[in-house]
Amino acid sequence: MTDDRFFPRHGPFSLGEIAGQAKVELAADAPRNLMIRGIASLDQAEPDELSIFCDVHHTEAFAITHAGAVITSVRLAERPHNGAALLVARDPRYIFAVVGLMFYPRGVADPGVHAAAHVDPSAVLGEGCQIDPGAIVGPQVRLGARCHIAANAVLGMAVEIGEDGFVASNATISHALIGANVRVGAGSVIGGEGFGVVPGPAGLMCSAQLGRVIIGNNVRVGSNCTIDRGAVGDTVIGDNTMFDNLVQVAHNVRIGRNCVFAGQAGVAGSVTIGDGVMVGGAVSISDHLVVGSGARIAGKSGVARDVAAGETVGGYPAVPVRQWHRQTAHLLHAGTRLGHKAEN
Amino acid sequence: MTDDRFFPRHGPFSLGEIAGQAKVELAADAPRNLMIRGIASLDQAEPDELSIFCDVHHTEAFAITHAGAVITSVRLAERPHNGAALLVARDPRYIFAVVGLMFYPRGVADPGVHAAAHVDPSAVLGEGCQIDPGAIVGPQVRLGARCHIAANAVLGMAVEIGEDGFVASNATISHALIGANVRVGAGSVIGGEGFGVVPGPAGLMCSAQLGRVIIGNNVRVGSNCTIDRGAVGDTVIGDNTMFDNLVQVAHNVRIGRNCVFAGQAGVAGSVTIGDGVMVGGAVSISDHLVVGSGARIAGKSGVARDVAAGETVGGYPAVPVRQWHRQTAHLLHAGTRLGHKAEN
Amino acid sequence: MTDDRFFPRHGPFSLGEIAGQAKVELAADAPRNLMIRGIASLDQAEPDELSIFCDVHHTEAFAITHAGAVITSVRLAERPHNGAALLVARDPRYIFAVVGLMFYPRGVADPGVHAAAHVDPSAVLGEGCQIDPGAIVGPQVRLGARCHIAANAVLGMAVEIGEDGFVASNATISHALIGANVRVGAGSVIGGEGFGVVPGPAGLMCSAQLGRVIIGNNVRVGSNCTIDRGAVGDTVIGDNTMFDNLVQVAHNVRIGRNCVFAGQAGVAGSVTIGDGVMVGGAVSISDHLVVGSGARIAGKSGVARDVAAGETVGGYPAVPVRQWHRQTAHLLHAGTRLGHKAEN
Repeated sequence: MTDDRFFPRHGPFSLGEIAGQAKVELAADAPRNLMIRGIASLDQAEPDELSIFCDVHHTEAFAITHAGAVITSVRLAERPHNGAALLVARDPRYIFAVVGLMFYPRGVADPGVHAAAHVDPSAVLGEGCQIDPGAIVGPQVRLGARCHIAANAVLGMAVEIGEDGFVASNATISHALIGANVRVGAGSVIGGEGFGVVPGPAGLMCSAQLGRVIIGNNVRVGSNCTIDRGAVGDTVIGDNTMFDNLVQVAHNVRIGRNCVFAGQAGVAGSVTIGDGVMVGGAVSISDHLVVGSGARIAGKSGVARDVAAGETVGGYPAVPVRQWHRQTAHLLHAGTRLGHKAEN
Repeated sequence: MTDDRFFPRHGPFSLGEIAGQAKVELAADAPRNLMIRGIASLDQAEPDELSIFCDVHHTEAFAITHAGAVITSVRLAERPHNGAALLVARDPRYIFAVVGLMFYPRGVADPGVHAAAHVDPSAVLGEGCQIDPGAIVGPQVRLGARCHIAANAVLGMAVEIGEDGFVASNATISHALIGANVRVGAGSVIGGEGFGVVPGPAGLMCSAQLGRVIIGNNVRVGSNCTIDRGAVGDTVIGDNTMFDNLVQVAHNVRIGRNCVFAGQAGVAGSVTIGDGVMVGGAVSISDHLVVGSGARIAGKSGVARDVAAGETVGGYPAVPVRQWHRQTAHLLHAGTRLGHKAEN
Repeated sequence: MTDDRFFPRHGPFSLGEIAGQAKVELAADAPRNLMIRGIASLDQAEPDELSIFCDVHHTEAFAITHAGAVITSVRLAERPHNGAALLVARDPRYIFAVVGLMFYPRGVADPGVHAAAHVDPSAVLGEGCQIDPGAIVGPQVRLGARCHIAANAVLGMAVEIGEDGFVASNATISHALIGANVRVGAGSVIGGEGFGVVPGPAGLMCSAQLGRVIIGNNVRVGSNCTIDRGAVGDTVIGDNTMFDNLVQVAHNVRIGRNCVFAGQAGVAGSVTIGDGVMVGGAVSISDHLVVGSGARIAGKSGVARDVAAGETVGGYPAVPVRQWHRQTAHLLHAGTRLGHKAEN
């Protein structure tokens, strides 16, 4: 069971209601009236809880789970189990996400401006916003309905955020226009000064950074990320793009829709990235490159040339993934050969 | 001498007191009554200060130091020096840490809740806690005795921290149960939403993250780290585990005791790490892997398969360290050969 | 045009004034009296705006720009264009930086201490400082004239910052003495505890970190960086050194003047770096190494041995850059050969 202190639960819901909302067919003999109180992992779920089985590593836990119902895939539904009602779906993880939102809906818990928040009188707040203690909302800021600005977050002058936005604690947003349903993690910095170093007569100096950050709808930024504003012109991020923690996006980067950036990835200045690109953890992409739509970049790669649409690359410097695997095989072989020599 | 503006000093202590507290034997002719006022590096120490010599690079500085006393090892004590009293220890760095705490003890300097802090009335604070200006302590938070929550740090609803905890400025903690004597660095985010991206009918979406972060005793988290809560189930960190700065720990990671993570290391989701594991700087560990107790991972490695207990690995992708060194030797040789060809 | 909501503009200035201030000669037939209202990219500039052409990729945009004036280089000035007045300079990027400061000068917009800031009575503020809401200025802090401490930034006890300093929101500075004209990005942590892990009888422990961070003049620190204070002795950063985002600098590192650290670079403990060193993004430098003046380190390299003055290195582990390129060529060749074998 989830910890009620941290996750206030809605429900309970009957299995029939859950299947209806998630648009999953139930077997004819499924206990449609079974009341489900919450969500838990296979090994911890109780008979009035729902779980998920989508990872073959959990086959054993599935076999003995006490969960009342389990969301799973057509293929995994064949595995032996303990009599739980099955919600069989093409994409169980998506169904689980939908059901998760039934029990633990997002949104504003406690609308209003806390007495210890600081909202500039010229800011315009939509209906039902929640501004927590210590949060700073600067002049001319515009927030859509139901935005939640958490404790000690800072929104600089004229920032705009669409409806249902969430800005976590200690995040800083400036020089940015942000769409609807965007979530910004704690400690992240959006709209910071891009890094434009120029040699001057008395040593290095920094060029003014006069652009903005433009973020679409349904974007998710993790914790302690940095997304710099453009130098001249904007940094742009498309709808449904998702960033894990500690990701760096430099000035004038343009990223399309439905991209995924795993933790500690970094994108240097003026890179252009298409739609549906998957970027692994700790990947680095050099400045001014173009990464085509649907490309995939293996974790920890160093990308130093353009990546074609649909291409999968890996390595440092990154090459097509099969070439990379052969390079790795060559090195393993060479290292082993050297080891044998050393022994003889 | 340390800068008194930043480090209020206790003491002075006699050399005899220091040796007694650190459980180090003094030579029969050592000046037990010499009063030591503070701690300094070999090259800056005065005759009433104590220093440490544990790094052979500092042999010259040891030879001419004006320190009144020096902590060192049996082996290094043989080197020529300037007459300082020697505190000879098996592990001089440990002794230095103990003596450091005599002169500069940790703990709460100024108990009480600052008028500009915001403590929810339902929070329970142990005796002698210090809550600095701008700090936010949310509803149902429970703090053990002598916790220090620094300026502008944020503790979310129902967070628990054991006694003698320290949370530095601008850190954010939520969805977490934390043991005693834990130090969290400035800007770190503990309990943020894990990164669970799921394809949905209208584009990518994020799955609810319903777990917690469970941290043991004596854990140290550096600055601007990110430790995500579990998706379903918890992220768990054992006693005495130490994190440098900018380290990423993803959802559902399990880390044992006495592990060390150097700066910018990253651990992807659901990785399991044993006890006493040493992870170098900028190392990346891929999701779902298992790293056995006592394993060591060389700096900047990319770990893409399980690591056995006691194994030392390095490289990208990481391999046993000797294999890695032979791969590096092979590359050097091949590169040099190509260079000669190019010249001929 | 830049977005006036985010960037209040000075001016307009005549082309003659601009050329004079930037010390650039205008052609005899240039329209010296043309009034320039602001700055924009080549593709967006209007006839009363100034742009820059310094990147050969923008040759087409230059050919059709509507900008009234363009800063460019001797070589690029030859390219066809649409009749814009040209400001031809040896270093157009430097001239652009100077002109940027004419239209968008830095400095304090709104001097005074906001009612919701918390300034300790023992702090000493120079003339014309701006302290924003939620900012915390600790005891004995000393700020030079015209410092701007942004919302929710925290300056710990006795920190000193010279004139014209800027500390962005949610940054944390402690145990630090900082020169004039220094800019610290949002979320950065300066003066945090260094990472000194020591094995003790009951498990790992951390040694007291008793040094400071000493930063020269004109230094720029990006967002979410971490610069730790020394263990015994100081971490030192020279004048005009520039850090991008998410850069880690460990305890007792010494960095010279005019160095550049791109995003996510990391420098381990006690490294010494000379003047004018260029460190690429995501580079890692192992502890205790020496990097000579004028060295250059390619992006994502792992530096595991000293780098000589003027040397350029790359790779993991890093080697001289030509050797690295030959290693890469060797791997490509070996991978391709293995691929052909697999096909036959």
